[in-house]
Amino acid sequence: MTTQVTSRSGTGREPAAARRTVEELLRRVEDELRAFLSAERDVWAGVDERAVVAVDALADLVASGGKRIRPAFCLAGHLAAGGERDDPGIVAAAAALEMLHVSALVHDDVFDASSRRRGMPTVHAKHSALHRRHGWQGESRRFGESVAVLVGDLALVYADQLMSRAPSTAVPVWNTLRSELMIGQYMDVAAAAEFSVDPRLSRLIALVKSGHYTIHRPLVVGAAVAGRSELAPVFRQYGEAVGEAFQLRDDLLDAFGDSADTGKPAGLDFTQHKMTLLLGWAMQRDEHIRGLITEPHHTPAEVRRRLLDTKVPADVEAHIADLVEQGRKAIADAPLSPAWRNELTDMALRVAYRSA
Amino acid sequence: MTTQVTSRSGTGREPAAARRTVEELLRRVEDELRAFLSAERDVWAGVDERAVVAVDALADLVASGGKRIRPAFCLAGHLAAGGERDDPGIVAAAAALEMLHVSALVHDDVFDASSRRRGMPTVHAKHSALHRRHGWQGESRRFGESVAVLVGDLALVYADQLMSRAPSTAVPVWNTLRSELMIGQYMDVAAAAEFSVDPRLSRLIALVKSGHYTIHRPLVVGAAVAGRSELAPVFRQYGEAVGEAFQLRDDLLDAFGDSADTGKPAGLDFTQHKMTLLLGWAMQRDEHIRGLITEPHHTPAEVRRRLLDTKVPADVEAHIADLVEQGRKAIADAPLSPAWRNELTDMALRVAYRSA
Repeated sequence: MTTQVTSRSGTGREPAAARRTVEELLRRVEDELRAFLSAERDVWAGVDERAVVAVDALADLVASGGKRIRPAFCLAGHLAAGGERDDPGIVAAAAALEMLHVSALVHDDVFDASSRRRGMPTVHAKHSALHRRHGWQGESRRFGESVAVLVGDLALVYADQLMSRAPSTAVPVWNTLRSELMIGQYMDVAAAAEFSVDPRLSRLIALVKSGHYTIHRPLVVGAAVAGRSELAPVFRQYGEAVGEAFQLRDDLLDAFGDSADTGKPAGLDFTQHKMTLLLGWAMQRDEHIRGLITEPHHTPAEVRRRLLDTKVPADVEAHIADLVEQGRKAIADAPLSPAWRNELTDMALRVAYRSA
Repeated sequence: MTTQVTSRSGTGREPAAARRTVEELLRRVEDELRAFLSAERDVWAGVDERAVVAVDALADLVASGGKRIRPAFCLAGHLAAGGERDDPGIVAAAAALEMLHVSALVHDDVFDASSRRRGMPTVHAKHSALHRRHGWQGESRRFGESVAVLVGDLALVYADQLMSRAPSTAVPVWNTLRSELMIGQYMDVAAAAEFSVDPRLSRLIALVKSGHYTIHRPLVVGAAVAGRSELAPVFRQYGEAVGEAFQLRDDLLDAFGDSADTGKPAGLDFTQHKMTLLLGWAMQRDEHIRGLITEPHHTPAEVRRRLLDTKVPADVEAHIADLVEQGRKAIADAPLSPAWRNELTDMALRVAYRSA
């Protein structure tokens, strides 16, 4: 249910041994997340019925799936660097990355006023509805969003608690990864509000909030747990390229994908005026797109049609292919075994050509 | 500007040596916070003008003062436990506690829709106003609140980064303190929405979100940095009592204090329907108070008048005095020097009888 990044092959071959090892460790990451949350629930269950609500919200989100991209790259970084597959520290580090991601999703859904995530109501939507149903005091929107902020805060704390089970060699990159995420998210929110056409800024945001956060730093966390921090420059080159491809696919999926596959509403970037590279380029070619998106009653279908007319989606596809190739080249001469070079190339393909 | 807890004497005597040491270390904590944020600003300043906005928001909040209660108790816990005054780990730990508190304040102000903090506009109010002034895309409220959530998230990450400079003996209590804070805050938000009169729940929330967070756990963090975790039970007894006194004074200051002293709007607990122990008791004696508070156009002055009529404020004062005495007794036979027993007793008085 949760291992799309590793279980979908871009090549149609049988999963190789490297990938099977990542998949096996991903199952241990699931166990770690479940066991951690269950132990926390036990701590709080006797205190008050309200004391477990936030823990349960996180358990629901973890159980609802997700692609587990960041844990997968963290595990791959560790194993590719020659790390022990039975090191419990790497499972904890990968689980920490997923818990951090859960935190980011819960807060992100508030910023985007999004109603669905992983096929379920978002935390704020669920708790706003609960507030309305009970006729509680105050504003339902504020209540739901406050709960979501606290649930995300708790996940941020839990992420750190999980990471404290990994070797301290991972702490510096873990710190960098987290502050980059918050600052990248702020830049994203600010650029959407300003809505200025600036592909340089769009690329910078994609780099800070996706390239580093999703691929580059998780690989380096894995290598650091294995005591191989000298691989950081290679993983940076690979991760920045593949991370940009990941973000560009995200933009295309948001614009043209199926909400049944992605588990979240389609066209959210348009309604939120997200200054993606896709939109930035398209607006440079067709100035009417800007007016269309800022028009409150636009439909995603209209935006999609005009985007296709600009031919930018095809250019983005070509750019994705180029980035995957850059990623492959970045590791071509790295001190990694051929099996792990292959697996990282396959992972780049699966991330760049995923359908959800 | 920032050391009210240690610089205001409850007794009128000259500050003793113990207190002077805490004050000196608090100045190092200020330096640590400033230096940390300044180094982070340097990392981001070259990237993009937007990349420093969140860091600057934190620097402004740190510079705007505050009582530094949690760092003061952390330092006192360390020194009372015989910790080295020149241990850089204790300064980092105390700075981490203050950074965590900044995070909590920024998020709390969103939950409370509060406009002012430490005499300045709150982060969300400032950024909503900026959004309106520039006529940016989307909703000004959502923009301001999203920025505040991210600024608080960044502070939460930075808090942890500061704590990673302290000895790892402090990690378990640091983890507990943080998850308690988030879960206590959720319970507070939920109880305010439900607005059921339940003094048991009010006391539980005061314990989880104030007693532990403000006094008990910071003392234990300090003792843990000094390698004296066996003091935890004594500090728990003292901290739970003095922490409840702290929260009750907070309730009284919110209800009857001067906004010019507290730096935040008066009567916020009423408008937010916070189920404080003060209100819980008062509502048990006068059922009209409930109707008054849920009436959208009530004035704080009306609520104040009815509260005084119930005589509950006087009972709360008596309860505070009793709690301070409990705190004093908790440390009476503890293995602490007489100087630190005195200082902790003085700190309890200053916290319980503060005016802001």
